[in-house]
Amino acid sequence: MKWMIWHHELVLRSDVRVSPDDRGYVFGDGIYEVFRVYDGRIFEPEAHFERLIRTAEGTKLTLPYDTASIQRRLEELLDREGVRDGTIYLQITRGEAPRAHPFPAGAEPNLMAYCKELARPSEAMSRGISAVTLDDIRWLRCDLKTLNLLPNVLAKQEAVERGADDAIWHRSGTVTECSASNVMMVKDGIVRTHPANHLILHGITRAVVLRLAKRLEVPVREEAFTLEELASADELFGTGTTIEVMPIVGVDGRPVGNGQPGPVTRKLQQAFEEEIAALRRR
Amino acid sequence: MKWMIWHHELVLRSDVRVSPDDRGYVFGDGIYEVFRVYDGRIFEPEAHFERLIRTAEGTKLTLPYDTASIQRRLEELLDREGVRDGTIYLQITRGEAPRAHPFPAGAEPNLMAYCKELARPSEAMSRGISAVTLDDIRWLRCDLKTLNLLPNVLAKQEAVERGADDAIWHRSGTVTECSASNVMMVKDGIVRTHPANHLILHGITRAVVLRLAKRLEVPVREEAFTLEELASADELFGTGTTIEVMPIVGVDGRPVGNGQPGPVTRKLQQAFEEEIAALRRR
Repeated sequence: MKWMIWHHELVLRSDVRVSPDDRGYVFGDGIYEVFRVYDGRIFEPEAHFERLIRTAEGTKLTLPYDTASIQRRLEELLDREGVRDGTIYLQITRGEAPRAHPFPAGAEPNLMAYCKELARPSEAMSRGISAVTLDDIRWLRCDLKTLNLLPNVLAKQEAVERGADDAIWHRSGTVTECSASNVMMVKDGIVRTHPANHLILHGITRAVVLRLAKRLEVPVREEAFTLEELASADELFGTGTTIEVMPIVGVDGRPVGNGQPGPVTRKLQQAFEEEIAALRRR
Repeated sequence: MKWMIWHHELVLRSDVRVSPDDRGYVFGDGIYEVFRVYDGRIFEPEAHFERLIRTAEGTKLTLPYDTASIQRRLEELLDREGVRDGTIYLQITRGEAPRAHPFPAGAEPNLMAYCKELARPSEAMSRGISAVTLDDIRWLRCDLKTLNLLPNVLAKQEAVERGADDAIWHRSGTVTECSASNVMMVKDGIVRTHPANHLILHGITRAVVLRLAKRLEVPVREEAFTLEELASADELFGTGTTIEVMPIVGVDGRPVGNGQPGPVTRKLQQAFEEEIAALRRR
């Protein structure tokens, strides 16, 4: 974590100075991506950059340079830091200007990125995690990956305080997603997950898992499910850039199915594992 | 704008350096207040600090020091900068820590404040402003004054792009507030405004205006009104720390009432003016 990208340059982290007038700081007026790195390579870069572009469009934010150049910079950063298995955090704000809500004329977007080593969560993936259910009180553009993350922060913190690993959100009983990942249930061999609309983040891992399920001929329905349906699920798992395919074996203190990661979850974990192995071989 | 408060100290603005790990920068994990200053004095400080405390509680954020000490610091800042009529911006974030959603152990909240001269918007208050109506897609804790302001930014920008001064939000046809102020309509001499619940910010100016209306024996109903009712309003006005009592004379390109600031609005503006004059005499 010695080097960062700041605007166009690779710089020492200790030299980075954010202005108190950065709109990211006073409005959360910015967007971000978290990339997974396996064996020194970015996983699913196209999908992440497509989403970055969609989020930029949805927030009317202009990227400071094209995504191919951003990717090259991120790869330079990875090399410099020598990260093999980890994550890259990239964020772009609407730049610096005296505080006023309308977009500032002439402000340049501020880009920053850093990477770090992060082991795959093997133990948690093996035994599963627990979750609590919470009201989803977020805004109605959860498909945009913006810096307005206070509801996510508060939900995660509440989960932790209640002794769980994560929060599963629902809107009036309809399950949407987790505080920083998507969620899928399995019932009678069928995978169900909330459709990719404005109420959930369009997870890259979610898309990979749906692709793998299709390949494995595991039936999938992109249809929302209720808390009641969740209570009778055979299996439940989260999908996310850092958690991959994560069994959720307990919800609100009650076991999901038999309280162990289930066979469909295991099958998808194994297929995901093979995706990573294929990337390493490339 | 030469001096700022940063943590506990009055420092040169040019010396302020925000960490890229500040949770305000990556999560919008912080809260704020904007105070009005008339004749070198903070207007309604108790109400602003009460709201700051409520927002801190609602976001489980610990203020770095007590509000009496914060107020003293803000007054020192005003003196140092010599601001007579202006605003003070105060924000407090959850501090610096490697990026992870749960609250960081041991992080100190970061406080910053600055002030600036800002003339009262006399001309706009005299002739009125225009607004467009927009879907209110914000989260369900609009009563908390947090740094997650992207929906407000986008709404204000859309208003500007559509040639208007501000946006009036509604949820499925029920009017909530403007992008950075509260809104009140007048029909048959009765003032109506959305109740102060989780769907609107509990404006300090809103409270002052309701108090003044009571004193003037202008009937007030804190009941939400619909877009349809708004369309038949005799008068409409916004209330806010910098806009005070601001006539809204056009909505979505159609005049409100006769397209001129109305008598109830004028009466409340005059009473507000007298409040300020009283402050100046103190």
